[in-house]
Amino acid sequence: MKVKDLGERDLIERFFEIMDKCKNSALPWGDDAVGYFIDDDRVLIVNVDMLVWGTDVLPGMSFRQVGRKVVTMCVSDVAVKGAKPLGVLVSIGIPKNFHVKHVEEIIRGINESSHEYGTCFLGGDTNECDEVVLDGVAFGVVDKRNLVSRSGAKPGDILAITGYFGYTAVGFKILLENLSAPSNLMKGFLDAVYNPRARVKEAVSLAQSGALTSSIDSSDGLAWSLYELSKASNVGFIIRNLPVPREIAIFAEDHNLDPFDLILYGGEEFELVVTVKPDMWNEAVKAVEKVGGTLIKIGEVTKEKKIVLIDEEGNERRVEPRGYEHFAHS
Amino acid sequence: MKVKDLGERDLIERFFEIMDKCKNSALPWGDDAVGYFIDDDRVLIVNVDMLVWGTDVLPGMSFRQVGRKVVTMCVSDVAVKGAKPLGVLVSIGIPKNFHVKHVEEIIRGINESSHEYGTCFLGGDTNECDEVVLDGVAFGVVDKRNLVSRSGAKPGDILAITGYFGYTAVGFKILLENLSAPSNLMKGFLDAVYNPRARVKEAVSLAQSGALTSSIDSSDGLAWSLYELSKASNVGFIIRNLPVPREIAIFAEDHNLDPFDLILYGGEEFELVVTVKPDMWNEAVKAVEKVGGTLIKIGEVTKEKKIVLIDEEGNERRVEPRGYEHFAHS
Repeated sequence: MKVKDLGERDLIERFFEIMDKCKNSALPWGDDAVGYFIDDDRVLIVNVDMLVWGTDVLPGMSFRQVGRKVVTMCVSDVAVKGAKPLGVLVSIGIPKNFHVKHVEEIIRGINESSHEYGTCFLGGDTNECDEVVLDGVAFGVVDKRNLVSRSGAKPGDILAITGYFGYTAVGFKILLENLSAPSNLMKGFLDAVYNPRARVKEAVSLAQSGALTSSIDSSDGLAWSLYELSKASNVGFIIRNLPVPREIAIFAEDHNLDPFDLILYGGEEFELVVTVKPDMWNEAVKAVEKVGGTLIKIGEVTKEKKIVLIDEEGNERRVEPRGYEHFAHS
Repeated sequence: MKVKDLGERDLIERFFEIMDKCKNSALPWGDDAVGYFIDDDRVLIVNVDMLVWGTDVLPGMSFRQVGRKVVTMCVSDVAVKGAKPLGVLVSIGIPKNFHVKHVEEIIRGINESSHEYGTCFLGGDTNECDEVVLDGVAFGVVDKRNLVSRSGAKPGDILAITGYFGYTAVGFKILLENLSAPSNLMKGFLDAVYNPRARVKEAVSLAQSGALTSSIDSSDGLAWSLYELSKASNVGFIIRNLPVPREIAIFAEDHNLDPFDLILYGGEEFELVVTVKPDMWNEAVKAVEKVGGTLIKIGEVTKEKKIVLIDEEGNERRVEPRGYEHFAHS
């Protein structure tokens, strides 16, 4: 059997069967990042995320944006577990005919993006490779009381997000399927794809508030992130107030698309998807607002392990376990 | 200008010019790994090392050996800074037509090798890529008093190695240039290439002894490692007793090669190259021997910043700054 016949997620399941368990591990298998107890009270969070030119770089993206994206990818998963990213390393594989000035632009992107996230680009490794590959590593340290896994959601908790979804799905449709968009909206759609931003401050502040019961970033899309939380926490979700941004509604109408499809099944969005203790909702909102963000209540955690969305007309729709998956799109 | 016109080492120099300095960094730029103060007394060591199929996998190597090699590469640099490797992560890029059973063999190699080094394979990332790329991350924590950089060597210190050099250079000549070797020696030569071993226990024990003034692993070859130590510590070396293993002497004679060329300019050897305080030599030897290793005195640190070797006839030879370099071999 070939990798493309199995798909990324089943392949990862095979890995877990082979891998021995580690006694100092502080996070379950398959969480956003790895957690390791470095002493009784503190957990080191380490995450590694590979950016491959052929699958992760969209048409029109600059070299500097590529460097920025690899940092966004790797710091997001560290922050969403509650740890401020302290340092970033990047391994670089490049073809030998690649231009030096383009590599330098990638490095500038990595350096400036690390700074913007309040962390530091510390080093890495360089290699010759047929395809451009950037593998980003981020690490941080979190007090064990503030560590947020995917597995703590309880029925009755509030389901919330830190921003609006759908922009990257539209961006992909514009760049990969040549769909058109009104010129006044174009910049916003492309910006979502070219300049994704991780919610680092929001994630760390939320974790410190003690209001969260679980957390994930939405790099595989909102629907997929909800399924991951559902699986890890053994709960379901009912979504009653999923915002449809005006721009997404316009684009959907122009192209006869379902706006909820764009919102649920996109990817690379890096918004936080969190569950909040109901009696600490105000603390959670304050924690996000004090760092300049917003927290949007979209639904609640249910005992029944299914994920449903109530649309504007009050109809119940099933949210499907779909999202971006490597190897599966051949 | 293209990357192949510049070479890996000059490219990395360009990176350093772009990268901002980091205030919590505990190791200078370009050391074996990254060091970051996680509190007043302890330093987190993180290393990332990329294995690319086209350049790092030798003909005849098994998938399991490839998995083992990526772990060896990444734990070696953590240990040589004095930190016991605590965890390993690996990012994997694979073509979609790659066989699942081969990926599983790679994962088995990563898992078993992590165990053998006393560490734990914790997780990683999977991606689609034209070429097989394995990016290994290892981390550990070291008391700042035991941290060993490349830059502490002082004139008069003893220069020492933890094993014999030359086997991998011979292995490369056999596998890449089709040179022959006596059948009773073949296994040893190939084993050096197929199953490299990092000196993890030796490195950690040596660091804890307090006898070292500097340390580097020899993954780019002995000569290059000496030049790196020389540059970082601003010293030179005189090598008076570089052992020529019997097998290397036989192979060199059979093929009319200089045995010192094989010993000095190989690579991927993972032996430690260390400098030792002269009054603590016995402690250093004891530290290595108690974990089953050997420490071989080969020379001393000199004030004059040149590297010379005195051969068996007493002739002085200049050691050249040569070793494996990506992009430069086009």
